[in-house]
Amino acid sequence: MSTLHRVDPGTHVHLKEIEADGKKLHDDRDAAEEEFKKYRKKIADLQVRLYAEDQQKLLVVFQAMDAGGKDGTTRAVFEGVNPQGVRVVSFKQPSHRELAHDFLWRIHWAVPPKGMIHVFNRSQYEDVLVVRVEELLPKKVWEPRFEQINQFEKFLADTGTRILKFYLHITKDEQKERFQERIDIPEKNWKFSKQDIVKRGDWDEYRHAYEDVLSKCSTKHAPWFVIPSNQNWYRNWAISKIICKTLEDMDPQFPEPESGLDKVVID
Amino acid sequence: MSTLHRVDPGTHVHLKEIEADGKKLHDDRDAAEEEFKKYRKKIADLQVRLYAEDQQKLLVVFQAMDAGGKDGTTRAVFEGVNPQGVRVVSFKQPSHRELAHDFLWRIHWAVPPKGMIHVFNRSQYEDVLVVRVEELLPKKVWEPRFEQINQFEKFLADTGTRILKFYLHITKDEQKERFQERIDIPEKNWKFSKQDIVKRGDWDEYRHAYEDVLSKCSTKHAPWFVIPSNQNWYRNWAISKIICKTLEDMDPQFPEPESGLDKVVID
Repeated sequence: MSTLHRVDPGTHVHLKEIEADGKKLHDDRDAAEEEFKKYRKKIADLQVRLYAEDQQKLLVVFQAMDAGGKDGTTRAVFEGVNPQGVRVVSFKQPSHRELAHDFLWRIHWAVPPKGMIHVFNRSQYEDVLVVRVEELLPKKVWEPRFEQINQFEKFLADTGTRILKFYLHITKDEQKERFQERIDIPEKNWKFSKQDIVKRGDWDEYRHAYEDVLSKCSTKHAPWFVIPSNQNWYRNWAISKIICKTLEDMDPQFPEPESGLDKVVID
Repeated sequence: MSTLHRVDPGTHVHLKEIEADGKKLHDDRDAAEEEFKKYRKKIADLQVRLYAEDQQKLLVVFQAMDAGGKDGTTRAVFEGVNPQGVRVVSFKQPSHRELAHDFLWRIHWAVPPKGMIHVFNRSQYEDVLVVRVEELLPKKVWEPRFEQINQFEKFLADTGTRILKFYLHITKDEQKERFQERIDIPEKNWKFSKQDIVKRGDWDEYRHAYEDVLSKCSTKHAPWFVIPSNQNWYRNWAISKIICKTLEDMDPQFPEPESGLDKVVID
């Protein structure tokens, strides 16, 4: 399994000490972009095998601060993959019906079946992030959730799901630039709401909540990766590489053809 | 919580040593039937409060050998309860889509939301019973499920679900009589299939598998009750009593009326 940017279990994560600038880690952007295209192609090829094999499951989770690049990463990495075998699930504010159940109810329903890749745009982790920072529920409710999430992910892993969780790590300055773009460019206006300013005001609280997530919930069976994401090209390179290596490790195989197929003549 | 027929955690259950004849435990059938009607009425009243309160959840699981009385118990105990607040979920042979997910996927989706009573006619336990006896999956797949079920039920309990699990305990002789009835009475023919004879042949294997379920999965937060069920009247009395006492313990309350409601005049 890829160890690039992986949070080893038991690590106490301090995001301020982790580089968010990919360009400081990789000095050849052109080469990275070429490699990214190769990984992306490889992912598309391996997905066809995964779907045909119809046995294994892959769950990819994206979490980030606002404007961290969840949508952009999904588009970039899974462009070219047959959408029949990949499903993106965006978890928004829970509905009345979802809130009437436990917080993992809507998550469990959305996990991948055999042969599929599911991408979670936000996830079960919102229930220990926004819920905590906005004080929507008391600590005695959200605190046990770290362990509940770990157990749930362990169960998914034990029943055949590979899990990769990516935190797209940007700096507060980078968020400022991206917000400004969303305000200045008419085609990007829809991505911005005044509420984003309020959440930006809680940057440190969210950073602290993320540090708890990354420290408590990176496990052997469901690791977190903290991806330097100030530059999209580095982010795409790193994430596509990790997903590609994971799919290679899963090594999906086309099923055996029906016996006697080599003798069949279509007329 | 009711301790009547409850399996205490850690007990090693031997079903042959447990009385299946309720009439040997209770010498006044008429009195039991009168009490049953009172419990049933009380359950209906408490269900109205549970629904109005819209906070707590109750899950009732029925498992039994064939002809053990799952359908009859459900009908008898929940007759008179507003169906809006009670949902019976029958788990049959899993579909292709269900089999493409982990075995708890369809179960989790069916758990009660706030304010509801859900009754499981068969349940997650089929995945360590029929799957085991019919050798549908290897031991290394079904054996971890006892612990996975315990963790799952603990999670449900920790997030606000009360769980009661009933094993309807009949003898092999009693099953014979009930099968014969299903063959002799035309209106009952639909309940019988030749497959039932095959499963009856595996009686001891099923009994052994049930003993493992009852020994490994009766927990403080999700207890099993072994109900003597050769006589329906005793079974109904015992189960309605346990459900009634549990609902009384949950003590659902009508929500506070909107303030100033006492001054509202409708004209």
